[in-house]
Amino acid sequence: MCLKEDERIDQLYAKDVKIIQSSNVFSFSLDAVLLANFPNIPKKGIVVDLCAGNGAVGLFVAKKTKSRIYQIEIQERLADMAQRSVQLNHLEDQIDVLPINLKDSLNKISSDSCDLVLCNPPYFKNLPTNHKNPNPYYATARHEIHTNLDEVLFISSKLLKMNGHFAMVHRPERFLEVIDLMKKNRLAPKRVQFVYPKAGKDANILLIEGIKDGKTDGFKVLPPMFTYDAAGNYSLETRRLLYGE
Amino acid sequence: MCLKEDERIDQLYAKDVKIIQSSNVFSFSLDAVLLANFPNIPKKGIVVDLCAGNGAVGLFVAKKTKSRIYQIEIQERLADMAQRSVQLNHLEDQIDVLPINLKDSLNKISSDSCDLVLCNPPYFKNLPTNHKNPNPYYATARHEIHTNLDEVLFISSKLLKMNGHFAMVHRPERFLEVIDLMKKNRLAPKRVQFVYPKAGKDANILLIEGIKDGKTDGFKVLPPMFTYDAAGNYSLETRRLLYGE
Repeated sequence: MCLKEDERIDQLYAKDVKIIQSSNVFSFSLDAVLLANFPNIPKKGIVVDLCAGNGAVGLFVAKKTKSRIYQIEIQERLADMAQRSVQLNHLEDQIDVLPINLKDSLNKISSDSCDLVLCNPPYFKNLPTNHKNPNPYYATARHEIHTNLDEVLFISSKLLKMNGHFAMVHRPERFLEVIDLMKKNRLAPKRVQFVYPKAGKDANILLIEGIKDGKTDGFKVLPPMFTYDAAGNYSLETRRLLYGE
Repeated sequence: MCLKEDERIDQLYAKDVKIIQSSNVFSFSLDAVLLANFPNIPKKGIVVDLCAGNGAVGLFVAKKTKSRIYQIEIQERLADMAQRSVQLNHLEDQIDVLPINLKDSLNKISSDSCDLVLCNPPYFKNLPTNHKNPNPYYATARHEIHTNLDEVLFISSKLLKMNGHFAMVHRPERFLEVIDLMKKNRLAPKRVQFVYPKAGKDANILLIEGIKDGKTDGFKVLPPMFTYDAAGNYSLETRRLLYGE
């Protein structure tokens, strides 16, 4: 296992998962942990993680399922880190890292074949007025430079079998657009959970699950989560997710 | 002031408001209190409360504004109770109770004239399969027998001036429809707040505010509210709303 100069190996919470990180190019965030813990994970079948970054979501999910997992990541450096993390965790038989543009994922994975698609996409629109991180790795991960929400949902829907599940983490300020574009792409929104930095603050993270060609009734708003407690420390539920406490 | 046989006078929290109630026909619920406290109330202008019931929302709001307030209620018995509560609180100069179908409100109030429309509408669809309360007063208040969500939003939008505000309380399971129909009726959703019975439970009340012909960006999910605390008593925030504690 080769580590590049700026890389480190982090231990991911209680689940005995190791992941290669680099603050120069990418480190997974709480959002990835929330996403991996949000949907019901199918016991077997095919799971795809779009916009996989350094692969945190897939590594978490692998602990809960026998499903084949595909990680799609356009940035070669990040896909390479993800690939080496797969080896580090001896998951080569379960996880395939595909260093491709998500547009091309249907050349690698059959349409209408997947049981679950997960995505932690770039949150911010690629507008000329938007300040972008000068680091191109972070800019690509955060801004819709190489893809956008509609395309992510279009590809997700194509990959999913009928009644397959889609789960995404995003920002509440784009909630209306998320709902609109999910419906446009045949993904019926079914459950949403809002994450608040702490009591008394507006939500800053949105988790949403939909079903391909699902019924439009039975929408649920799950219990709220708080990232921090009143003292400014990680809340009990955050610590449980991050450290398995 | 005449009270009918089955009526009582309740004191509404700390604000020195009295209201005529009857468990045979209608008593206001926490939902009305939440709605009255949700939007910013314009200091002056015109406020309309659609589906006003026995008038709780308007009575609350009157304490916060010099605006003229119209209460629209189709059920004559409830409108009559609301009218007598207006007298009981000496608010005849500020509040008009109109015992009419909301379809007819544009015959009484000019279109494009209102600063705020509030609504606590019937929550449940009028489907043959839906169990309805055998008491017709409650059935009308709870089920979309005499109106429906699309009509409520259509009339609200007609009443509002450009950039006028709309605020509604509803059920989270109809959130997707609320969003869709608000947009269809030129009411841009801007703020939503979910109310949860207690920690760890799905939301059971939705508060939403929109702006007529408003921009579609800047959507916010406000801090969560809990009706009850862990011991099953009203939470601090509920007690504050109900009793002004």
